[in-house]
Amino acid sequence: MSKKYVYLFSEGNAAMKELLGGKGANLAEMTGLGMPVPMGFTVTTEACTRYYDDGKKIDPAIEAEIFEYVTKLEEISGKKFGDNENPMLMSVRSGARASMPGMMDTVLNLGLTDDAVEGLAKRTGNPRFAYDSYRRFIQMFSDVVMDVPKHSFETIIDEMKLAKGIKDDTKFDADDLKVMVSKFKAYFKEKKGFDFPQDPKSQLIESVTAVFRSWDNPRANFYRMQNNIPYDWGTAVNVQLMVFGNTGDNSGSGVAFSRDPATGENKLYGEFLLNAQGEDVVAGVRTAPRLEDGLKIAMPAVYDDFAKIAKKLENHYKNMQDMEFTVEDGKLYMLQTRFGKRTAAAALNIAVDLVNEGLIDKKEALLTLEPGQLDALLHPQFDEKALKAATPIGKGLNASPGAAYGKVVFTAEDAVEWVGRGETVILARMETTPEDIEGMHVSAGILTARGGMTSHAAVVARGMGCPCVAGCGEIVFGDKSFTLGGKTIKEGDYISINGATGNIYGEAIATVEAQIGGNFETVMKWADEFRRLKIRTNADTPADAAQAITFGAEGIGLTRTEHMFFEADRIGPMREMIVSTSIEQRKAALDKLLPMQRGDFEGIYEAMQGYPVTIRFLDPPLHEFLPHDDAAIKALAGEMGIAYDQLKNVIDGLHEFNPMMGFRGCRLAVRYPEIAAMQTQAVIEAAINVSAKHPEWDLVPEIMIPLPGEAKEFKFVKDVVVETADRIIKEKGSKIKYMVGTMMEIPRACLTADDIAKEAEFFSFGTNDLTQMTFGFSRDDAGNFLNYYYENKIYESDPFARLDQTGVGKLVETACKLGKQARPDIKLGVCGEHGGDPSSIEFFHKCGLDYVSCSPFRVPIARLAAAQAALRKD
Amino acid sequence: MSKKYVYLFSEGNAAMKELLGGKGANLAEMTGLGMPVPMGFTVTTEACTRYYDDGKKIDPAIEAEIFEYVTKLEEISGKKFGDNENPMLMSVRSGARASMPGMMDTVLNLGLTDDAVEGLAKRTGNPRFAYDSYRRFIQMFSDVVMDVPKHSFETIIDEMKLAKGIKDDTKFDADDLKVMVSKFKAYFKEKKGFDFPQDPKSQLIESVTAVFRSWDNPRANFYRMQNNIPYDWGTAVNVQLMVFGNTGDNSGSGVAFSRDPATGENKLYGEFLLNAQGEDVVAGVRTAPRLEDGLKIAMPAVYDDFAKIAKKLENHYKNMQDMEFTVEDGKLYMLQTRFGKRTAAAALNIAVDLVNEGLIDKKEALLTLEPGQLDALLHPQFDEKALKAATPIGKGLNASPGAAYGKVVFTAEDAVEWVGRGETVILARMETTPEDIEGMHVSAGILTARGGMTSHAAVVARGMGCPCVAGCGEIVFGDKSFTLGGKTIKEGDYISINGATGNIYGEAIATVEAQIGGNFETVMKWADEFRRLKIRTNADTPADAAQAITFGAEGIGLTRTEHMFFEADRIGPMREMIVSTSIEQRKAALDKLLPMQRGDFEGIYEAMQGYPVTIRFLDPPLHEFLPHDDAAIKALAGEMGIAYDQLKNVIDGLHEFNPMMGFRGCRLAVRYPEIAAMQTQAVIEAAINVSAKHPEWDLVPEIMIPLPGEAKEFKFVKDVVVETADRIIKEKGSKIKYMVGTMMEIPRACLTADDIAKEAEFFSFGTNDLTQMTFGFSRDDAGNFLNYYYENKIYESDPFARLDQTGVGKLVETACKLGKQARPDIKLGVCGEHGGDPSSIEFFHKCGLDYVSCSPFRVPIARLAAAQAALRKD
Repeated sequence: MSKKYVYLFSEGNAAMKELLGGKGANLAEMTGLGMPVPMGFTVTTEACTRYYDDGKKIDPAIEAEIFEYVTKLEEISGKKFGDNENPMLMSVRSGARASMPGMMDTVLNLGLTDDAVEGLAKRTGNPRFAYDSYRRFIQMFSDVVMDVPKHSFETIIDEMKLAKGIKDDTKFDADDLKVMVSKFKAYFKEKKGFDFPQDPKSQLIESVTAVFRSWDNPRANFYRMQNNIPYDWGTAVNVQLMVFGNTGDNSGSGVAFSRDPATGENKLYGEFLLNAQGEDVVAGVRTAPRLEDGLKIAMPAVYDDFAKIAKKLENHYKNMQDMEFTVEDGKLYMLQTRFGKRTAAAALNIAVDLVNEGLIDKKEALLTLEPGQLDALLHPQFDEKALKAATPIGKGLNASPGAAYGKVVFTAEDAVEWVGRGETVILARMETTPEDIEGMHVSAGILTARGGMTSHAAVVARGMGCPCVAGCGEIVFGDKSFTLGGKTIKEGDYISINGATGNIYGEAIATVEAQIGGNFETVMKWADEFRRLKIRTNADTPADAAQAITFGAEGIGLTRTEHMFFEADRIGPMREMIVSTSIEQRKAALDKLLPMQRGDFEGIYEAMQGYPVTIRFLDPPLHEFLPHDDAAIKALAGEMGIAYDQLKNVIDGLHEFNPMMGFRGCRLAVRYPEIAAMQTQAVIEAAINVSAKHPEWDLVPEIMIPLPGEAKEFKFVKDVVVETADRIIKEKGSKIKYMVGTMMEIPRACLTADDIAKEAEFFSFGTNDLTQMTFGFSRDDAGNFLNYYYENKIYESDPFARLDQTGVGKLVETACKLGKQARPDIKLGVCGEHGGDPSSIEFFHKCGLDYVSCSPFRVPIARLAAAQAALRKD
Repeated sequence: MSKKYVYLFSEGNAAMKELLGGKGANLAEMTGLGMPVPMGFTVTTEACTRYYDDGKKIDPAIEAEIFEYVTKLEEISGKKFGDNENPMLMSVRSGARASMPGMMDTVLNLGLTDDAVEGLAKRTGNPRFAYDSYRRFIQMFSDVVMDVPKHSFETIIDEMKLAKGIKDDTKFDADDLKVMVSKFKAYFKEKKGFDFPQDPKSQLIESVTAVFRSWDNPRANFYRMQNNIPYDWGTAVNVQLMVFGNTGDNSGSGVAFSRDPATGENKLYGEFLLNAQGEDVVAGVRTAPRLEDGLKIAMPAVYDDFAKIAKKLENHYKNMQDMEFTVEDGKLYMLQTRFGKRTAAAALNIAVDLVNEGLIDKKEALLTLEPGQLDALLHPQFDEKALKAATPIGKGLNASPGAAYGKVVFTAEDAVEWVGRGETVILARMETTPEDIEGMHVSAGILTARGGMTSHAAVVARGMGCPCVAGCGEIVFGDKSFTLGGKTIKEGDYISINGATGNIYGEAIATVEAQIGGNFETVMKWADEFRRLKIRTNADTPADAAQAITFGAEGIGLTRTEHMFFEADRIGPMREMIVSTSIEQRKAALDKLLPMQRGDFEGIYEAMQGYPVTIRFLDPPLHEFLPHDDAAIKALAGEMGIAYDQLKNVIDGLHEFNPMMGFRGCRLAVRYPEIAAMQTQAVIEAAINVSAKHPEWDLVPEIMIPLPGEAKEFKFVKDVVVETADRIIKEKGSKIKYMVGTMMEIPRACLTADDIAKEAEFFSFGTNDLTQMTFGFSRDDAGNFLNYYYENKIYESDPFARLDQTGVGKLVETACKLGKQARPDIKLGVCGEHGGDPSSIEFFHKCGLDYVSCSPFRVPIARLAAAQAALRKD
């Protein structure tokens, strides 16, 4: 039996979303519920993928099947497609599996021709309506199918309004509209060189094709990437009998939500336009009044009908609905229903309300939420009013959410100085480096011209919860100034950035603080009931740790120990350590670092109040701690009291072609075991000291060795750790226990995880580096070419933001399996950026990880995502 | 039952090599054959690994077991260990599984003390012999066990010789030797602060411990790395009753090969010293005469006995033997037999002779050969006589074999110019870059101060068969000069290098050409009979291709298409292509490159005479084709007629943090498909043109797309290739077939090989890059820390030279399995450096690859290694 590519609405239901798309499935469902839905049929998503597989052609068999269903509609409607007496008109609308509002294209009033419009006018006795419908058809068909932009037609309308001295398009009479149609047709011919098509059958097929084609247009591609919708899903096409909101003042079109999408309040929220088709409401050609002010007054019975249907749909779908409807000559028709998009605050309120109303249970409520949306609740936002008055001067990547304004400064040192004297600053840099940390910490926001979503600026800013717009390539830096969008911003000028949208403004825009309401807490508690994954945080400072605790973190999965070394009082001994020419010198420098590092760890243990803390040993290439330009090298040599040549030699010796694949991670500890010994001493002594004050916390330090690729390598460093730790524990007469584990971030480590697990007590997947090594590209460099990959659908999401389950995921699974074989009670976690990404969290749940660790501000998101993963799996 | 750690020679045999070590197993075998072997026992290799596992301590139970066997030897010998009347003396010698000549330590005459030496003198009536033995014991025990270097004692001997006016140590009489013993003991006490040990039991245990310890000494570690002997094998210790070659002129010691180890000639070849212990022969204290001139004349019966035993051993082991023996009072004793080390030429001659003599068959003969040794036969060598007169001034890595001399030049341009006027030059560089290619081609040898075995210089030199010494870090460059080993070499001075040893000489040393004899061809033919793997070559030029054909290559597995672009007439259009700002400009530049590239490919097809040729598309980062210093950029901008700023911007835009993980490989073709289209056109047109001349060759071009990590990425580029190729084939009316495959060099590609194989017709593993990505370190940078890994036995061989079967190998196996699942007839090969490494070839054979591809000069080695792999597997 050959495959069926077309379904009548009466043949489908809501469960057939994959095949019929969201819109088609819901139209079928409403039809099944006996609601007033004009009949129609859906051309399936499979027909769309066939279209692309066949080289962008609709197979003749599918065309024939479509016309079979046109015939069925003719039987149902009693009208005839292409007829000049009683023409059957239809709408053609896209409808993908996932809702992609406004992303694809629609054609209304299809089936009209120069002759049919006359028949329609005659039959309805309403030539104004007939010509209004025809001019709409010409306009939409030209735009969507024929590549003649809509706005050219709008110019004609505007000119005619001006000539006639009217403002409202309903004031055009039938004759005006006839003239408009001929002007439209003339314009079309001028543009295209041929007459406007008069064959309804080809109009239909061309329109279906246009909808398929629209699946691949740039804004659809962009939307899909943003929302992780696979390209190969395709879109369905819904062909539906037209009902007309434009027959006169007893007709109209509206859109409505079953609850307020901004606040979640439980009341109908929508707009209705008399004598209009649906597009008018959406496009805002006239200002549509609220339902209560329009429909309810003009047609109270219709309003009641609609309110009942809205409630029925909400109860049926158990979620807030977003609906489109048309009233034709006083009769209500439903044209669409779908889950309503809502703000984060509304989403929480609706979820809690629906549970309180007894419509759904807590599990279902959790599944209605979009974890990523929570981000907006955790950061300051622009004051809405102030924002409306502002226009962005440019846009970068939305690298770390939150809104901020401040005076712009161009160096980390200036940031520190300006903030020191009470200013609020935004730090603008070409790109940030670890040396900028202190300045980043004090800034209200960070703006960079280079770097992607996982650049240094982005990663650090997210970790600190600091708003950041990264990689705005249009910025041209001058001398303590930059130019963007034609505006030159000098040091001290106010700018504002929105890290959630990437927008940059050349002025100060007031912000309002984040407000985490009671329903936020309620929902988080529900999530905690159901999730199996523990949620930890990546935090390097007591402040970050404390922040994460308030967000519900249950431990630290990653404390980096190198950021501490960039601070002013530490960089000195750190550099001494690096330029040491003997082990004695190196140890002397390390001895200076020891008390500072111990103090750091004590602070973190105190802040974490007994929750587990994983401390990662020194990881970055040593050259990051040294200057690279000659003047700075000379100055430092002077400061350190060593010869320029000696320092220059050390720096040259540390130069690497590919630092990412160079002398870093545990390779440092293999070369200089004394560094690992010092860090071990700091960790163990800190834990002993804090334990003395808080014996009830039962601290068990977790020491994490980064970047091994081989079991013997891990063991070599572990031996140093164990030897040092056991010695100190013995000396201090302590009974403290500790764990030694590793960060899995090298493909070979995953492939030999059984050997490593014989020695390592835990694995924490460092999926940032693992992604780099597995793909063989560095996140710093891939930005230059990955856009071409997205354009060509080779990759559909950023593998640094969303775990690549096919490749990198296979290594993670392999490592989990081998690790558990060798050590059944091995603790498994993840501490890469992916630990805060909902879809990746679902994957980690499936892999059987014990925890995910993410930046403090992602903790609530991770809690919710972990609950959803558990609920979806169960 | 507890494990047995000690075996009498009469308890073992040759098959127990793993447990008893090579020496112990062969002593046992000779004992079993009824040959005159002094009885002894072997402490097993397992005792050695226990020693290390137990923290470098010999377990008391093993100590007890050793003394049990001492008691057995007492019963056998009728003497008593530690006795002062009739003392039993023993030798203690190391003996690992694999022969490691001179790498570990030996103690003779153990059991002597101040009292026992008197007893021995009395009992034998030969005080001279007794004291000679004692002084030897003190000397060796001090050196091997007590860390008092041997040469200090030699100084004492020399002084006594001088005082007595003798040259030969046999001229010392008993009294002299008594004095010598007391001088030795006094020196020992002076050095150590205590008297020379007088307890034979502790002498024995200390000596066994010293042998175990010697397994971990630097020269043993170095030898193991060179010869791929695992550290965890451990060494056995052989404790044997002493027989004495130093009792007088009816005694002596000798070493001999059953055939000439230099030529392979079938005649006894060895040396014998009267009145001497074995060490004297090895150390050369006196010049030992040839067997024919010494032993045969002095003791003809003993000579005949020995000759018979030698022949018997050779027949028994079916291979040339290297033996040690001692004659005590006219009676022959065998102390060792093993496979004799031999020159490459001798190895071939012996293998062929043994087959002709009917002793072994061709399969066995092939397995006697060491594939890596063949290298020496394929390159020029230093004239032996001239070499003896020369002393190296330094040593680097033996990066590409062969000996060369020439006048030193310091730039590639100078090399070209000097050779142009008839000079022979050695090119000395800090490190080489692709821009040096032309200069490297004309040089007789290459010397670099930086870079490892897989640095640019090393890889390119091996490919060209050009001698190269790389990474000599001691070289200090001056202005057109360098200093090494205290000698300053200026431009135009003669130097010589030996790429097989890494030695560098500050003078010209004459060389002799490689001579590939008839037996070489014979052995290669035998190898071809048995191997399953095809052998291809990596070759970028017709000359390389032709060279490889003469060595037996059956195709090209890798033609790089970028080296061609560095040549003077191509770099221009290449740069135009890179700085193009529009696709039209880029295509115009590519149009200039097309005929050159087509000509290249035609040349290679011609040279390969119908053998298959795999052509890899453009791979390196584009910035390699552009200058980086400001002056050169300015000059080039002038030449190209574009603004400095424009060129500088392009170069800055191409800058990458980690070029290895950046914009290269097929990423270039995704970004600029027109490059792949041009290369496809060049390949297909070249194949069509050459096919027209040689229809009998039935050319099937193999196009290789480098560096994909994802099937869709591969497909994207493949689609460009197929579209272009099919169009050209149609235009030209050709019927040529072609294949499109990929280079597997990214971990993710291996993990998703099934998806890729749906599109790719062949896989060629690029194990260089795959190794880098899998280990997460770059070969250019890893040199800085890998030495510490070798020192600490984390890695025991260079993973870039010898495939890491544990990690990288797992990815290769996975990819082979998945690839065959998706496409059962997929062609599988390897084109990384590992394709020429014998142990890696064995692995590839096991994986089921179809071919390996290596540089031309490795082809014969690969042929032999492939045959051995097939024979070992069968």
